[in-house]
Amino acid sequence: MAEISAEDRADLSAAQGMSATTKRATVPALEKILYEPLPVLDHGFIRVIDYMGDDAAIVQAARVSYGKGTRQASQDEGLIRYLMRHRHTSPFEMCEIKLHVKLPMFIARQWIRHRTANVNEYSARYSILDKEFYVPAEDQLAVQSSTNNQGRGEAISREDAVTILELMRRDAAQAFNSYEYLINADGEGAPLDADRPALARELARIGLPLSTYTQWYWKTDLHNLFHFMALRADSHAQYEIRVYADIIRDIAEKWVPLASKAFEDYRLHGTELSKQALEVVRRRLRGESVEREGSGLSIREWRELEALLNG
Amino acid sequence: MAEISAEDRADLSAAQGMSATTKRATVPALEKILYEPLPVLDHGFIRVIDYMGDDAAIVQAARVSYGKGTRQASQDEGLIRYLMRHRHTSPFEMCEIKLHVKLPMFIARQWIRHRTANVNEYSARYSILDKEFYVPAEDQLAVQSSTNNQGRGEAISREDAVTILELMRRDAAQAFNSYEYLINADGEGAPLDADRPALARELARIGLPLSTYTQWYWKTDLHNLFHFMALRADSHAQYEIRVYADIIRDIAEKWVPLASKAFEDYRLHGTELSKQALEVVRRRLRGESVEREGSGLSIREWRELEALLNG
Amino acid sequence: MAEISAEDRADLSAAQGMSATTKRATVPALEKILYEPLPVLDHGFIRVIDYMGDDAAIVQAARVSYGKGTRQASQDEGLIRYLMRHRHTSPFEMCEIKLHVKLPMFIARQWIRHRTANVNEYSARYSILDKEFYVPAEDQLAVQSSTNNQGRGEAISREDAVTILELMRRDAAQAFNSYEYLINADGEGAPLDADRPALARELARIGLPLSTYTQWYWKTDLHNLFHFMALRADSHAQYEIRVYADIIRDIAEKWVPLASKAFEDYRLHGTELSKQALEVVRRRLRGESVEREGSGLSIREWRELEALLNG
Amino acid sequence: MAEISAEDRADLSAAQGMSATTKRATVPALEKILYEPLPVLDHGFIRVIDYMGDDAAIVQAARVSYGKGTRQASQDEGLIRYLMRHRHTSPFEMCEIKLHVKLPMFIARQWIRHRTANVNEYSARYSILDKEFYVPAEDQLAVQSSTNNQGRGEAISREDAVTILELMRRDAAQAFNSYEYLINADGEGAPLDADRPALARELARIGLPLSTYTQWYWKTDLHNLFHFMALRADSHAQYEIRVYADIIRDIAEKWVPLASKAFEDYRLHGTELSKQALEVVRRRLRGESVEREGSGLSIREWRELEALLNG
Repeated sequence: MAEISAEDRADLSAAQGMSATTKRATVPALEKILYEPLPVLDHGFIRVIDYMGDDAAIVQAARVSYGKGTRQASQDEGLIRYLMRHRHTSPFEMCEIKLHVKLPMFIARQWIRHRTANVNEYSARYSILDKEFYVPAEDQLAVQSSTNNQGRGEAISREDAVTILELMRRDAAQAFNSYEYLINADGEGAPLDADRPALARELARIGLPLSTYTQWYWKTDLHNLFHFMALRADSHAQYEIRVYADIIRDIAEKWVPLASKAFEDYRLHGTELSKQALEVVRRRLRGESVEREGSGLSIREWRELEALLNG
Repeated sequence: MAEISAEDRADLSAAQGMSATTKRATVPALEKILYEPLPVLDHGFIRVIDYMGDDAAIVQAARVSYGKGTRQASQDEGLIRYLMRHRHTSPFEMCEIKLHVKLPMFIARQWIRHRTANVNEYSARYSILDKEFYVPAEDQLAVQSSTNNQGRGEAISREDAVTILELMRRDAAQAFNSYEYLINADGEGAPLDADRPALARELARIGLPLSTYTQWYWKTDLHNLFHFMALRADSHAQYEIRVYADIIRDIAEKWVPLASKAFEDYRLHGTELSKQALEVVRRRLRGESVEREGSGLSIREWRELEALLNG
Repeated sequence: MAEISAEDRADLSAAQGMSATTKRATVPALEKILYEPLPVLDHGFIRVIDYMGDDAAIVQAARVSYGKGTRQASQDEGLIRYLMRHRHTSPFEMCEIKLHVKLPMFIARQWIRHRTANVNEYSARYSILDKEFYVPAEDQLAVQSSTNNQGRGEAISREDAVTILELMRRDAAQAFNSYEYLINADGEGAPLDADRPALARELARIGLPLSTYTQWYWKTDLHNLFHFMALRADSHAQYEIRVYADIIRDIAEKWVPLASKAFEDYRLHGTELSKQALEVVRRRLRGESVEREGSGLSIREWRELEALLNG
Repeated sequence: MAEISAEDRADLSAAQGMSATTKRATVPALEKILYEPLPVLDHGFIRVIDYMGDDAAIVQAARVSYGKGTRQASQDEGLIRYLMRHRHTSPFEMCEIKLHVKLPMFIARQWIRHRTANVNEYSARYSILDKEFYVPAEDQLAVQSSTNNQGRGEAISREDAVTILELMRRDAAQAFNSYEYLINADGEGAPLDADRPALARELARIGLPLSTYTQWYWKTDLHNLFHFMALRADSHAQYEIRVYADIIRDIAEKWVPLASKAFEDYRLHGTELSKQALEVVRRRLRGESVEREGSGLSIREWRELEALLNG
C-alpha cells in the first residue's frame, strides 16, 4: 500500500480541499486523482501534483505551425494521430506534468537517465531517510535469464524464495540499524545518545542498500513522458520500473486520452521493420517462400520477425 | 499596437470567457491577463497561454529536497532568496509557462538559441505569411557603436532617418509584392491568376526580409525564463529583443512575485567580481590606494570596475 | 561551387598541412577530407573540422555497460547492429563531430531546431555579411503540392522559371544594395561615404532576404547526427536541407562505416508499422483478404501501407 | 590506489602504445596522460579517453561569430578571458572530453544530475559487480554540521572512528557475501553451487550498499565541464565528489590552460554580489559607515559579505 507520512497526509487533505477558478485548460478526469498517491510496489507511489495542457493544447500548438490550412480540414483526433504517426513531436511537448514519486534507489538510478526532465530529490545529506526498503514479492523472484542477458528467467521455488527474502530483509534491517546508530538522531535530529558523536548524514547513508526508498518531484513534457513509457513499459525493462510506467500509462490515459491512444497504437503496440525485414515481408506477400539465408537477417532477427508476424 | 487576426480575436474572446474549477496552484494576477496580447514593437505581442506552479510550488519542491529540516525554520520568501543566492536552480524548474509570441524573424533567430524550451512555430512551408514586417521607430535608428562592436552608438539625425526608413519600407514592400506574385494565392490558398503557376511556398518565402513577423508557441521553465531574461534584458542585447524580455519581466512579476524579486536582486541588478577585482575591492576597503598596474585587471576591466563601484 | 574566402583558403592550406601524433582513435578516411569544403547548393559548403571516436568507440562504450559478457561473444559489427536495432542510443553519443557549415538562413532556421548540438554562428551584429544569397536551380522550381501541404508538386515550365528567377535575383540584389548603403562601410568597416551615418549593423541587416547565406560551427554527437539525418534526408524535408543531409550521410559513412550501415538499414530504409497495420500484414500473410473497412486504418494510412508493401 | 582490472590493464598498455597521425587539434600535455588512471578515493579513478579541441578551438569558434573584426585585434588569451567574463559560453562548448570514471554509487547519483552529458554506465543487470566499496579515510569522518545543514562539522575522535569504520566494513562485507550467494556465480557466470538457483542479477544487486563502486564513460563539453567544476569543487559539495572535481581541474589545466585560468579567475575564485551587497560596498568605499539594519541584507548574508570582504 502507498505510504505517505502523517504530515504529507495532512497536506494532501488540505490540497484536495482547495479549489480555484481558472481560465486554463482543465481536465476533470485528472483533477479527480490530483494529489492522490497511487500505490506502486511495497512502499512506493506516484502522485500527480500539477499538469499543463490537454489534448486540445496539442492541436492548438500544431495549428500554430500548420496555420489556417488545418483549421477546418482536420478533426482533433485525426490531427493528433497524424502527428504521432509522422513523429511530429513538438506539439506533444506543449503539455507538461509534475509527479511526486516514491521509489527504490536502484529504480531511481534507471529513471534519472531520462535527461529531459526536472527533478527535486529528497536529500539524504540534509535529512534523515525513513526506514523503508523494497523487498520483492515472492512471485517476482526469478533466476537470471539464460537467453536475455539482462533479465529474469523462470521463477524460483517457494522454498528457495523464502531463504532469499529472509536474507534480503536481514541485511537491509542491519544496514538501517547501523544507519540509525551512526546518525545518532531521532526524527527531529536530536541525539539518541548524547555521549556518542552523530556522524554526518552524507556519510552515514553510504551503507544503506540500493533498495532504500527515496522520493522526488519529477516534471516532464508529454513527448518525453511517452518516450519514458516506450522504454520503461517495454518487456525488456526491469519489472520494478515497469510497474511505475504502467501507472503513468493510466495517468496519461486520463489526462490526454486521444494522444494516449495514438501513442499506444503507433508506438507501444506498433513495430519497426528493418530494410531487410521489410523486404522479407514484401516477398512473402507476393507469395514467395523466403529463407533466412540471403535475407540479410541474423538468426536472432529472423526468429524475432517470425514471432512478430505470427502475432 | 498588438495585432492579432480576426480569427484569433474570436478565439481569444472564447478563451477568456472560459472558466473551470481546479485544485491546481492558481495565480489570480496572471489569470487576469491570460490570453491577452501584450503589445511589443510595431506588430508583435506576447500572450500568456498557460502556466504551471507559483511561488509556493518552488518552496514545495525545495522542501522535498531539504526535507523536514526546513519546514518550520524558513519562511517562503527567505527560502526562495536562499535558493536564488546559492544558484540552487532545480526548484525554479518546477514552474512552467507557455507563451504565444509574435516577433520579427531576426529576433526569432536570437531567441531560438535558448535550447531548453519547447517551440511550435508558424510554418511558411504550409501556410501563407501575413504582410507584416518590422520597421524601427525613428528614435531607434542609431549608428554602429565605435566602442561596442555589436551595438548601437549615437542616434541618427531626423533627416537621415527619414531616408533610411523609406528605403526599408520600400524594399520590404517590394519583397512582399514578389511573394504574393510567386505564391499566386489569396488567403484561402486559391489562385489569384489561374494562368500562372503557384510557386511552392517553401521557395516563395526565401526572398522575404528578416524583418518579417513570425509567431510561435514557446514553453519553458522558470529557471530558463530567468536565464532568458538575464541575457536578453541586458544592455548588450539588441533593443528589439530587450523589449520582449521586459514584457516577460512584467509577466514574471505577476506570476511569481517572490522569485522575481529575488532574481532582480541577485542576478539582474547584482554583479560578478573576478578574483582580481575582488582583491582590488578588499584592498581599497582596507584603505590602500590601488593602481591598475599589478592589479591583474585589463584596462577595460579596470574601467568597468570603476564604473561599477561608483554606481 | 563551394566558396570560401581567401582568408579561409589560407587557413585551410595551413590546417591541411598540419600533422600531429596522437594516441586517440583516428579515422584515416575522414582525415583525408578534414577541413576540405564539400560544396552544397550554389554557395554553401560543409567542412569537417574535428571529430571524436570511431566505430570502435561505440563498441568500447557499449562494453562498459554490458561488461565482460559481451567481450568474446559479439563481433563489433553485430554489436553495433544490435544497439541500433534496439535503440540503445547512448553508445552512439560517445562519438562527436564538428562541422563548419555555410547555408542560407531559411535552412539555418530549420537546422537550429535540433537542440542537442553546439553552435557558433556568424554574427551580423558584429560583422558585415557577404553579398551571397541562394537562388534555386531552374529545375528545382516547382508548384505548391496539392497532396502534401508543405511540399513541392510538379515542375514549373522553363518560361515561368526564367521570370521567377529574375524576380528573385532582382529583389535580393536590391536588398543587398540597400544593406551596403545602410552600413556605409567597406570590408574593413571604413566608411564609403564620410558624409552619411553608418547605420548599426544589427538594424541594417533586417532587410536582407531569408536566402542570405550565413555560416556556423555546429557540433553534435553521432546519435543526434543520425536523428538529424533521419528527419532531414527524408522525402518530406525541404530539398535545400536534404542536400546538406546527404553530404552528412557521406561524411558519416567515411567516419563510422559500421554504424552508418546499421542506421541506413534499421532507420533510414526501415519502416514503422502501427498496431493496426501490423495486424493487416499478419492477416494477409495468413492468406486472408483484408479490407480497409474495419482495419482501423484511415484512407491515407491504407494507401501508404499499400505503397509500402508493394515496394 | 587506482585499481583497474588485469584485462583493462592490458587494454591500457595497448592503447598507450598506439599512435596515429592526425590533422586535428592535438594537445601534447594531455596526450601524455591519455588512458592513464588517475587515482581518486580508495578504489576510484578518472581516465581521459578522448578529447576534441584545445584553447585555439575556442578562439576559432568565437571568431566565426565575431568575424573579421576580432582577427587582428585580439590576442587569444584576451579573447578567451573576454568570453569567460561576459559568459559567452558557446565557444567553450566547441571542446569536448570523454572520461572513464570509477566512483561510488552515492557519488554517481550526484554526478548524473549534470544532464548535458553522455553516459554509458556499467550495468549490474547484465554483469556482476566487483567486490569494491568505498570506506572513508579515518580523517574524513566528521559529525553533522550544526551550521550547514548538509555538511560535515568537526572531526570524530580516533576511538569513535575505529568503531564506525568497523561497522561500515562489516555491513558492506555482509552485503557482498549475500550478493555472491544470491547470484551464485563465479566471475565467468558459472554456478558456484549447482543445486541452488542463481537469482537474477537485477534483483541480487538491490541489497548492495550505496558505497559500491560503479564505473562509466562520461562525455561532456568544456562549458558543462566548467559548470561541473564550479558546483562540485565548491566547499559546499560533498568531499567525495570534490576530490573528483579537483582531478578534473588538473586535467582541464593540461588540456586548455588559457580557458582554465580564465575559469579559475572569473568563476571559481570570483564572487557574486547582490544589488544590496553591491550598494553596501559602494557606500563603504565612499567612506560611509554602514549598518546591517536597512541594508536589505539578512543576518547570514551580512556575515558572509563581511567574511568575503575581509578575505
